[in-house]
Amino acid sequence: MNDELAAVIARYPARFRGVAILPVSDPEAMVAELHRAVRELGFVGAYVAVGPTAKRLDHPDYEHLYKALVDLDATLWLHPSRPPIIPDYPDEKLSQYYEWLVVGWPYDTTSAMFRVAFAGVFDRYPTIRIVTHHHGAFIPLLEARLANALPALEPVGLPMPTKISKPYVDHFRKFYCDTAASGYAPKVLELAVDFFGPDRVLFGSDAPFDVQDGRIFISETLRSIEAMAVPPNTRAAILANNAKRILKIG
Amino acid sequence: MNDELAAVIARYPARFRGVAILPVSDPEAMVAELHRAVRELGFVGAYVAVGPTAKRLDHPDYEHLYKALVDLDATLWLHPSRPPIIPDYPDEKLSQYYEWLVVGWPYDTTSAMFRVAFAGVFDRYPTIRIVTHHHGAFIPLLEARLANALPALEPVGLPMPTKISKPYVDHFRKFYCDTAASGYAPKVLELAVDFFGPDRVLFGSDAPFDVQDGRIFISETLRSIEAMAVPPNTRAAILANNAKRILKIG
Repeated sequence: MNDELAAVIARYPARFRGVAILPVSDPEAMVAELHRAVRELGFVGAYVAVGPTAKRLDHPDYEHLYKALVDLDATLWLHPSRPPIIPDYPDEKLSQYYEWLVVGWPYDTTSAMFRVAFAGVFDRYPTIRIVTHHHGAFIPLLEARLANALPALEPVGLPMPTKISKPYVDHFRKFYCDTAASGYAPKVLELAVDFFGPDRVLFGSDAPFDVQDGRIFISETLRSIEAMAVPPNTRAAILANNAKRILKIG
Repeated sequence: MNDELAAVIARYPARFRGVAILPVSDPEAMVAELHRAVRELGFVGAYVAVGPTAKRLDHPDYEHLYKALVDLDATLWLHPSRPPIIPDYPDEKLSQYYEWLVVGWPYDTTSAMFRVAFAGVFDRYPTIRIVTHHHGAFIPLLEARLANALPALEPVGLPMPTKISKPYVDHFRKFYCDTAASGYAPKVLELAVDFFGPDRVLFGSDAPFDVQDGRIFISETLRSIEAMAVPPNTRAAILANNAKRILKIG
């Protein structure tokens, strides 16, 4: 897959950058393929699937990947992956009404962010770049809950196996996110900018997954960014400059 | 429990209104207790727990409850309930880092709203009042995803057992919500007002669950409402007038 992608990029080098698929079930092969993709194929980083049927991101297997990303100055993208065969309720066999995708997928991203944050990845690798899908999913909405509920809960004594720096909520600010809200949602994108900061939000549309093969998602995402109550340089950062910096373009 | 609550209200009748706990495992007893609580105890409605260990809200047992709520002009409150014994990932035995409560609970509310909406409750009972916790959880954030992703997904043919009116997203606007964001979050509350409308957002603080026994949640929620970019009459509706109308006070 990565070799085929590299061949496409070689034909359109001004248009595409490569993001590698990794064999996450084998930690040594995972890191070796990241090295090969970045050093030999010229890719800008890698993607991993997250969710209850994927490997949790605080699994020890991922430690070498985090270190390799920093060593290579490469970027990691997360994408949710829960399938419809995980039922929403125990008396059913399949998820209903596409809840697994509409709500479950942003939940998967949110859960992955929990695992990265509480595993202390940002304490050990402060410069690591991890880009989350769907405007950081539910995390910007839950900012106050993360800031105020956890300090009240921790004395209860349920599993909190972490030694990361406090306040916990500040770890979550170190992720990057894209702007894919599946439509017009300027206030949602403002929440993301408020939470992650203007340097950590990158244009992303989720095309082509709409009823017009992506045209709605692209045009509505651009319209959202235009309507955001932010200074012009933040808009320019989201639309181009953050990606140029991270992907070392131009 | 309901009789003891009624005794407290009898001592402070200008201060409290009663919301009944219902025996949801027995559908006939559930409806009988709602009738008794409203007609004999003077309660304004009832509360039910939602989540993967509770009964899903499109279960046929709840149909009589929805009808009784409308017949009695009573209100239903939902509260999430997922326990920490539901693990986040299959290789663990307990939820970690309080994910079950910080993210899982708003997920439970969101899932409950899916079930009420897609069961057609608002088509059959357009005047029903169902108040959701935590600013309608993830639903206002997912507005564009509900509006644009579902029409693209439905032709895929996964379980979508519903005959409700379209667009689906408009059913979700018929819920009410409270303002409990666990802290300062004016933009989150603006999202809720934009989505549900100014007549369907009611003051709620989630006190006493903070490190100062509720004082933070109450003061920060009031500060959020003060900071919202809304007209003064919307602020007055949230702080008092919506509750007065729904609970028939004054």
